[in-house]
Amino acid sequence: MDGRRRSWWGWGWEGEGPNKEQTERIAAGLATRFGLDGLRVAEPARLEDLDLPAPRIRPPDSLTSFMSSSTYDRAGHTYGKAYRDVVRAFRGQLESPPDYVAFPDDPGQAAALLDWAADAHVAVIPYGGGSSVVGGVEFDGRGFDGVVSIDLSRWDRVVEIDHTSRAALIQAGVYGPALEDQLRPHGLTLRHFPQSFEFSTLGGWIATRSGGHYATARTHIDDFVESMTVLCPSGTIESRRLPGSGAGPSPDRLFLGSEGTLGIITRAWMRLQDRPRWRASAAVRFNDYFGAVAATRAVVQAGLTPANCRLLDETEAAMSAGSGGGVSVLVLGFESADHPVDGPMGRAVEICAGHGGTTPDGVQVRDDHGAADAGSTSGEGSVGTWRNSFIRAPYSRDAMVAMSMVVDTFETACTWDRFPELHAGVTESVGRALKEVCGDGWLTCRFTHVYPDGPAPYFSVFGPGRPGSEVSQWDEIKAAASDAVLAHGGTITHHHAVGRDHRPWYDRQRPDLWADALRAAKASLDPAGIMNPGVLIDP
Amino acid sequence: MDGRRRSWWGWGWEGEGPNKEQTERIAAGLATRFGLDGLRVAEPARLEDLDLPAPRIRPPDSLTSFMSSSTYDRAGHTYGKAYRDVVRAFRGQLESPPDYVAFPDDPGQAAALLDWAADAHVAVIPYGGGSSVVGGVEFDGRGFDGVVSIDLSRWDRVVEIDHTSRAALIQAGVYGPALEDQLRPHGLTLRHFPQSFEFSTLGGWIATRSGGHYATARTHIDDFVESMTVLCPSGTIESRRLPGSGAGPSPDRLFLGSEGTLGIITRAWMRLQDRPRWRASAAVRFNDYFGAVAATRAVVQAGLTPANCRLLDETEAAMSAGSGGGVSVLVLGFESADHPVDGPMGRAVEICAGHGGTTPDGVQVRDDHGAADAGSTSGEGSVGTWRNSFIRAPYSRDAMVAMSMVVDTFETACTWDRFPELHAGVTESVGRALKEVCGDGWLTCRFTHVYPDGPAPYFSVFGPGRPGSEVSQWDEIKAAASDAVLAHGGTITHHHAVGRDHRPWYDRQRPDLWADALRAAKASLDPAGIMNPGVLIDP
Repeated sequence: MDGRRRSWWGWGWEGEGPNKEQTERIAAGLATRFGLDGLRVAEPARLEDLDLPAPRIRPPDSLTSFMSSSTYDRAGHTYGKAYRDVVRAFRGQLESPPDYVAFPDDPGQAAALLDWAADAHVAVIPYGGGSSVVGGVEFDGRGFDGVVSIDLSRWDRVVEIDHTSRAALIQAGVYGPALEDQLRPHGLTLRHFPQSFEFSTLGGWIATRSGGHYATARTHIDDFVESMTVLCPSGTIESRRLPGSGAGPSPDRLFLGSEGTLGIITRAWMRLQDRPRWRASAAVRFNDYFGAVAATRAVVQAGLTPANCRLLDETEAAMSAGSGGGVSVLVLGFESADHPVDGPMGRAVEICAGHGGTTPDGVQVRDDHGAADAGSTSGEGSVGTWRNSFIRAPYSRDAMVAMSMVVDTFETACTWDRFPELHAGVTESVGRALKEVCGDGWLTCRFTHVYPDGPAPYFSVFGPGRPGSEVSQWDEIKAAASDAVLAHGGTITHHHAVGRDHRPWYDRQRPDLWADALRAAKASLDPAGIMNPGVLIDP
Repeated sequence: MDGRRRSWWGWGWEGEGPNKEQTERIAAGLATRFGLDGLRVAEPARLEDLDLPAPRIRPPDSLTSFMSSSTYDRAGHTYGKAYRDVVRAFRGQLESPPDYVAFPDDPGQAAALLDWAADAHVAVIPYGGGSSVVGGVEFDGRGFDGVVSIDLSRWDRVVEIDHTSRAALIQAGVYGPALEDQLRPHGLTLRHFPQSFEFSTLGGWIATRSGGHYATARTHIDDFVESMTVLCPSGTIESRRLPGSGAGPSPDRLFLGSEGTLGIITRAWMRLQDRPRWRASAAVRFNDYFGAVAATRAVVQAGLTPANCRLLDETEAAMSAGSGGGVSVLVLGFESADHPVDGPMGRAVEICAGHGGTTPDGVQVRDDHGAADAGSTSGEGSVGTWRNSFIRAPYSRDAMVAMSMVVDTFETACTWDRFPELHAGVTESVGRALKEVCGDGWLTCRFTHVYPDGPAPYFSVFGPGRPGSEVSQWDEIKAAASDAVLAHGGTITHHHAVGRDHRPWYDRQRPDLWADALRAAKASLDPAGIMNPGVLIDP
């Protein structure tokens, strides 16, 4: 990885993110916003000061050849990258690190590890990019003799490309950028850009039903899986490569969203796209938020399928789109590798106008044919700019952790008929919790994905925290948010997964008999119950 | 049902289908085609001549109040509507009729029936419209004390419509026409038109992962389910109504394709569409079949999503599109409720021209706004004409049964890279089997659905049979076809389901560990194993 090293406590590469001066400037701005004297910027715990408990297990030499018990590896694999994870790591609170971190070179080594772990009563936590924000890779080891985090990042190759069917066989441990780098020379792309893109893997996307780049139509990774191979403690499952099938329930759909509880996804045939050439984008402004909501609904129900269809509420628009305040903004984008997209964009803008939307900046249309930047990830014009700022956001979040800001997000999806009530309920509950817990703060909402039958609203929370209490403060706000989401017909997660953090609400959301069926399936695939215990279901 | 009665042995309503004179004309034409002296047209067995074995079970009076043991009901529920089913019924071969047919008024009655059946060791066969062509509703009772077919046709109402989210809560026993009749006054439609439309139900479509009207993009019923309620022997599962979710594996996806083995789908919230207004259609002719295949692939990979994209090979084009022979025909159709579709149609025709396609009849464009026929199912212009002829095809099939023709279809899906080989392999194997078994015959191929990564080819077989041997003749051809499909990377079924007839090939196709997981899930939902035994998996 070109000499860079990942931060063991925060997002991304060591040394990336805002520098000291930039951080102080952010702190000063936030202090002013919240009427505080100032925000103290703390320093993260130092790796050399960590005193991790010694490993409780002693795997055989045949396994330790690809395992590590270094403080760096164990500390870095203790948590995911939720706000509460970063806060705890930042403060050096690492009570339950994995005993070992395994880096198998191939599924054979992973299978050997699973065999040993089942016998030795050791829990195995599959680890892709470690970007979970729901406690998906954190386990306290309760009920087991030890815990091994199995880091799959060595499985990082595109194995085979089928140009005719526009699909590729891809190892599951590949990170987003490395995956796109391998597809680009072929003019192909997976076009799956979750915010975690830089530090998440294909296998992680599949295991968590990741929501992708597209705002409409097929966007969840679910729709792009052609077949997959899963290594379970009881053996390997490989589904048949097919464009579609009606032969019984889809095996793939059981593993999509299984979050490491059934086995380890080792590779998958994925449906690819040609790299887009034509683009059109527009920012539509609305004085009335619910007029904007109605317009968004009308666009997607008209059968238009914009790649980007992100409705920012007034606060979000002011913060991230420079709207100047007082207006909601619908960011629309169409793109195609085959044909100009002025037509659908024109129709979308027309629909918005019928709901009071205006486009003072007009529509931007581009044809990237032969553009010099067509080959690079970083420079793909406005989409690239947006994407780069989007995927760099977690670095800023970490800077705010240092100044004890409570800053995190939550997301859901609901049908359109429920949205006004859900929006009001969440705003009221989270607003009250913020006031009680932080004294002040703000809550913003944007749609990340939009379906004909409902939106996926994504909320961001910012409030000044108390050093040492940030985790409990956030947990209180998050509980209020989750209660409100459930009460008003939303799902506890649209694309962040369930993990351990969402369990209480997931348990209320999912039918009990479904949990029974899932438990039974797990018992047949993972008889010793070693795979990611506590996620989704209890044994 | 307006006084009409369904045929107990064949497709559809009694008295529909070709009359005696039309049948004789078909027979004469076929005799000429196959160089035979003539084809004798037999008469079906008479209901009053059937001598069914007496019911072996005596359900309690509380259940028999909604159960029937009449010869008409038992005979009519003995088989589905595969060729082999119709032949056997036509000849009065009804060795294993269900002991009773239940017609529950509500899920409460169905639940009482399941409770009793689990205790009494009686198998329960969910029966929607009975249109299965894969042995999905036929059971010989082996290992059980009796068999009850549970006919859900009384659950036939649209319960609630959510106009905002464009979705409806629909009882699962509703037939296609009755469903559309209830949605039409609201300007809405499910737009799911499988060939069985007239005699299949929403619950059946869900249980079998039915392939719908659309040739591209979202077309399987899977994509239109927002949530569902399933009555299992161990209780009722109701999933949450959501436009999208990432909360664990999708519960709905376990029941989609479960073919009655896990429980009875009682109702579902379904995603609806506005009724289309703008349409464009074209028939593109190709002298080279594989040029036509390449054009079809290019159209769908360009991100164009025609509603109709059916590639007919030379024989199919001559038979059903009057092409005059020697050319393959790609039937293209675009439609929208919101905007004209000339743009994408123009681009599709342009792509086809690049592959040698010509459109001597040009493109037909229509705007149905305010059209007098917009309200009727039967008269929706060219689409309606095509659909009516499409859904009436099974009546003609039954007429050919009377003249001992071997006439059936099979379908699959494969990735584009495998298609030439699969096409050659199937053509060779089935051609040889037809020659051996029937002496002569023909095989046609069309694409019913097309994905960016592969087509769903649908094959039709016609050959002269020997009276009394038709079933074994067809079984031999079908085995050759299924072997070839599997050997060349296809799925044993794209949208006809697995049932009992496809079991040997499904068992080779699906991973063994997947069958274990499915068995475990079934054991938790149906502990006594009474639900549709032998379909998909053995206990």
